[in-house]
Amino acid sequence: MSHTTEILLALFVILLAAKLGAELFERLRQPPVVGEILAGVIIGPSMLGLVAPSEFISLLAEIGVIFLLFTVGLGTKPSTIFRVGKTALMVAVLGVVLPLVGGWLLMRIWGATNIRALFVGTALVATSVGITARVLSWLGLVNTIVARIILGAAVIDDILGLLVLSVVASSSTGEINYLKIGTTALLAVAFTAFVALIGARVITRLSPRIETLRIGESPFIVGVVLCLGLAAAVSFIGVAAIIGAFLAGMAMAEASEGNTRVHIQTNAVMEFVVPFFLVNIGMQLQLSVFRDSSLVGLAVAVTLVALATKLIGCGAGAWTLGVKKAAQVGVGMMPRGEVGIVVAQIGLSLTVIDDRLYAVVLFMAVATTLIAPPLLGVLFKEEAAVQNRALEQSASD
Amino acid sequence: MSHTTEILLALFVILLAAKLGAELFERLRQPPVVGEILAGVIIGPSMLGLVAPSEFISLLAEIGVIFLLFTVGLGTKPSTIFRVGKTALMVAVLGVVLPLVGGWLLMRIWGATNIRALFVGTALVATSVGITARVLSWLGLVNTIVARIILGAAVIDDILGLLVLSVVASSSTGEINYLKIGTTALLAVAFTAFVALIGARVITRLSPRIETLRIGESPFIVGVVLCLGLAAAVSFIGVAAIIGAFLAGMAMAEASEGNTRVHIQTNAVMEFVVPFFLVNIGMQLQLSVFRDSSLVGLAVAVTLVALATKLIGCGAGAWTLGVKKAAQVGVGMMPRGEVGIVVAQIGLSLTVIDDRLYAVVLFMAVATTLIAPPLLGVLFKEEAAVQNRALEQSASD
Repeated sequence: MSHTTEILLALFVILLAAKLGAELFERLRQPPVVGEILAGVIIGPSMLGLVAPSEFISLLAEIGVIFLLFTVGLGTKPSTIFRVGKTALMVAVLGVVLPLVGGWLLMRIWGATNIRALFVGTALVATSVGITARVLSWLGLVNTIVARIILGAAVIDDILGLLVLSVVASSSTGEINYLKIGTTALLAVAFTAFVALIGARVITRLSPRIETLRIGESPFIVGVVLCLGLAAAVSFIGVAAIIGAFLAGMAMAEASEGNTRVHIQTNAVMEFVVPFFLVNIGMQLQLSVFRDSSLVGLAVAVTLVALATKLIGCGAGAWTLGVKKAAQVGVGMMPRGEVGIVVAQIGLSLTVIDDRLYAVVLFMAVATTLIAPPLLGVLFKEEAAVQNRALEQSASD
Repeated sequence: MSHTTEILLALFVILLAAKLGAELFERLRQPPVVGEILAGVIIGPSMLGLVAPSEFISLLAEIGVIFLLFTVGLGTKPSTIFRVGKTALMVAVLGVVLPLVGGWLLMRIWGATNIRALFVGTALVATSVGITARVLSWLGLVNTIVARIILGAAVIDDILGLLVLSVVASSSTGEINYLKIGTTALLAVAFTAFVALIGARVITRLSPRIETLRIGESPFIVGVVLCLGLAAAVSFIGVAAIIGAFLAGMAMAEASEGNTRVHIQTNAVMEFVVPFFLVNIGMQLQLSVFRDSSLVGLAVAVTLVALATKLIGCGAGAWTLGVKKAAQVGVGMMPRGEVGIVVAQIGLSLTVIDDRLYAVVLFMAVATTLIAPPLLGVLFKEEAAVQNRALEQSASD
């Protein structure tokens, strides 16, 4: 079989399995993301072995999550995020400190070296906001105050996570270059603020001229170009590419408001590429390592600490909103998904963690990602019902 | 720079350059495909060197041309192709024989060995139908009789091209397995007929059930899954994946007729991914080899033979339609694009042709692809004007 045939077959199998999983979970009234990730577990190396993770699929997965965050950004005006800025900052900071300390402490008790314990703590830090964003848009609740806090906190969380990773990774190899890390932090914050503040205004002003371009579907294409450009730019600074995609979406939010065609178009691309992101997370799971029963205990313990520290840390940050909303924020920040996997891969490549600990972190990343969506479904049941009634009302009017 | 950053930057540069090229050519009232291919030449290794061809970009290019043919198929009902079947067959057969003989003869006169001459002839055989399809849909003329003949002939042309390549490639390495080649031919024809005849009916019948699926944008997603599945299937048989994508589109043509949402969605994905296909063709051009002036003469001669043999061969096949339509068909079959490039790559990997002859074939592939679109624009000027008036009429009604 030629290489092209293999790749086409893999794309077909992944997309088909993901959509079957999503359909099944929709019928069970459960979040379809869970079905798509489980489809990855089933077709991946740990079970059927139909498809193996590859560089091409990882890159498609990256494009998938970039489009997901771009689409979420398109529905989020910068001003709505700024309004919840203080709460989001509190949520992010407490949601970084508690998992880091919690993960480190657990590993130290388990008997790991300091640097190993720090690395596991670091893997617990960053939230995979894509998963929560996907669940919230499935529930039709992207425009609630809780969703905005989660999105804002996730941006800050990612920048903080990057700094923690820089410090921990460089301390494992030798000297820590505080100047370089400080510059990265400053650049990340300045870039984010610049795009959110200035970028949106520039795009809104240029919007009528974008419409007059002769190329097909110009508003959509300009959006995609901007999305890739900012994703590349923030990735160059060292921040996750999805932050750039989210910023690009936010910058275009006002200009594309009411442009149904652009929303249909980005949604179509998203439905096509996001499954690669979700299935790729599921495919990473390595169940074979868990024949060692002592590792199973550790994996469960790390996962419980990962869930509890985000719930308590982020919940405490959003405490002023009341218990229920605080719980929603805490659960929304739980999934570690691809971010946890990336940290584990870096740890493995630096030989700070071994294959077995790598499998433990991967288990935590996939498990937190599978557990959060159904919990979100329960916690947001009331709001989703209200939203549904409002939609039915407006449809019958 | 990390690998992800590099890839994102490459995607950004390619998409931006392609769309700038398209915009420029639209403003010059020239086919935008030419602008996009030239963008590839300019940013590629032969000029600025901003982006180099890579496996990832080649695979994205493949997805691009697959989506292009899927979209074209969506607008083509199988019955409309069957009606022009005989003419299409004549066009395809003469359009295969003449380039093969012409290319072989030219190379023999130039003094090449028999097998080398045969390989260059083979590279002249297959048409890159994506380029013509893109130009015709830009002109709004996909539903004319000439367009249908070109599409039908291109499918047959590709199957014949595959057989010629099988024979020539295996004769260069040793024994020719006629049984295997015969089986491949039979499979290809049977599969094409089966999908075109039975597939379309099945999809049309299942269409109401596809609408009731719970997953988002189900008609679009089912189309994409079918497209990838058939592309993988024909690729497995040995036929170009785009034939499967075109068949998938045709099978869904009736079911998706009048479904504006699906057309907006496939169009959006196409506008996003096709530039990678076009830029990738342009990037293949290797101008540095042409410092040798004797090669320049050969490259020009091969290109002229490539243009003349398709014009005369395919034109003769469509002779019954009159001179003008015959010329339109002949020019429409001229671009060799990615198919010529693939044959050249196979020749290089079998060491049948060397680096210098490889560069000559690549020049022919890119040059025929750049020359055909403006010629099509001139030849279809009248039809495009009529089409425009009809559109304006219906818009003002």
